[in-house]
Amino acid sequence: MEGGMDKTLADELMSVADALADAARAATLLHFRTELSAENKETDRFDPVTVADRLSETRMREILAARRPQDGILGEEFGTTTGTSGLTWVLDPIDGTRSYLAGTPTWGVLIAVMDETGPIYGLIDQPYIGERFSGGLGRAEVVGPMGRRQLKTRAARPLSQAILFTTFPEVGTPEEGAAFNRVKAQARMTRYGTDCYAYGLIAAGQIDLVIEAGLQAYDVQGPIAVIEAAGGVVTNWEGGRAHMGGRVLAAANRAIHAEALALLNA
Amino acid sequence: MEGGMDKTLADELMSVADALADAARAATLLHFRTELSAENKETDRFDPVTVADRLSETRMREILAARRPQDGILGEEFGTTTGTSGLTWVLDPIDGTRSYLAGTPTWGVLIAVMDETGPIYGLIDQPYIGERFSGGLGRAEVVGPMGRRQLKTRAARPLSQAILFTTFPEVGTPEEGAAFNRVKAQARMTRYGTDCYAYGLIAAGQIDLVIEAGLQAYDVQGPIAVIEAAGGVVTNWEGGRAHMGGRVLAAANRAIHAEALALLNA
Repeated sequence: MEGGMDKTLADELMSVADALADAARAATLLHFRTELSAENKETDRFDPVTVADRLSETRMREILAARRPQDGILGEEFGTTTGTSGLTWVLDPIDGTRSYLAGTPTWGVLIAVMDETGPIYGLIDQPYIGERFSGGLGRAEVVGPMGRRQLKTRAARPLSQAILFTTFPEVGTPEEGAAFNRVKAQARMTRYGTDCYAYGLIAAGQIDLVIEAGLQAYDVQGPIAVIEAAGGVVTNWEGGRAHMGGRVLAAANRAIHAEALALLNA
Repeated sequence: MEGGMDKTLADELMSVADALADAARAATLLHFRTELSAENKETDRFDPVTVADRLSETRMREILAARRPQDGILGEEFGTTTGTSGLTWVLDPIDGTRSYLAGTPTWGVLIAVMDETGPIYGLIDQPYIGERFSGGLGRAEVVGPMGRRQLKTRAARPLSQAILFTTFPEVGTPEEGAAFNRVKAQARMTRYGTDCYAYGLIAAGQIDLVIEAGLQAYDVQGPIAVIEAAGGVVTNWEGGRAHMGGRVLAAANRAIHAEALALLNA
């Protein structure tokens, strides 16, 4: 339990988070693998926002208005709402909109609740698979096709034996790409384009590293809560806190985190 | 129905294919997301073969020995067995072993049955999601989390509006990479590392193109049967038949196939 939070409140937050994820699951699947027109949110790169994205966040905000009106909300689609409780819900209604449009089941719904210290609980939900990773407030588990399992990150191994995931070459500046490539060159295997699902794979002990750039708070807070609860380490590329976004290095353990951090800054 | 094959035989082949895929599903999930040691099949690149890979093919061969002893088998793990019927089962017990090891649900089991003309029926099965794409012998469908649906590839659209999937930059020679990049430069969106699942997405009408190199017969025959049954086109990079592997261009329709083929050979 974080900072002496009482069990009643912790249970309530976990229950609300599940309710949000359930609502987002229904909203996102309503339009998944159907013909829909994507809008471009920015003119200079392809970043589709779908009807499903907005519906998913709207449904989550409706639940929060009913069950946690005292909390703030920071959402990808509809911005920031301030609260009075000191808690803020951080919502990404569809992380991985490119995957969503293409039909690949590696996009997800990201939900976190943060206090003044950062995210204290988070979810990574994959609606099509029906798989939910959760972590914080004493919990670190995944519920999905193989039932309920505890999450535990991998034990330390050298980078030469490690599996690295990323959204590069689709994101980042040339300089960031060069830093990423220094880590990639030493890793055993690198995989691309798996979106937020890769963070679940770190928490589940399947992979060692995720390196990203250009992220927002709502892209990382759910993953940070889940990965830290499972024993992993998430920072920015300077080794500082990453919960407000930017360039993110997520690692299964301190040793591989240190090895990758040194190469990013070499 | 292909070439006047009688319905009894067609039903039998579809039933056997489902039995193979069911057995492979159980065998592959037995070891998925568990710690297992990967061997390296080749010394010069990372191509893990797992216990699950061999178990999956062994279970499929047991079923074929019992139900279709007259047919040949071409399998990734245990080579070629000749038959007397003129039909050969083409088996990839785990396509996407890197995804399998990393825990990403985009690997699959590929099954095809071919006669002297090429694949006449095929499956792409994703065991973790519980999703099966099938095509040929009058069928083109997917059964998965959203129930049973007909498969139908996308209508023609310009490459500038198209979604391209690939395993590049992980596969191919530098020359092949350059040819791939000519298509990528014109496409609206390119996604990486999705393995055989991308072929299912073409058949399901979600994406427009998959471009690969260095494939084997067992990597492509299932996908070819499924995509052709759904209305798509699969050839090699010269526009010829691709069912024995090599460099593959899979397209949702003739128009986008022609546009990509011209760029590959520019």
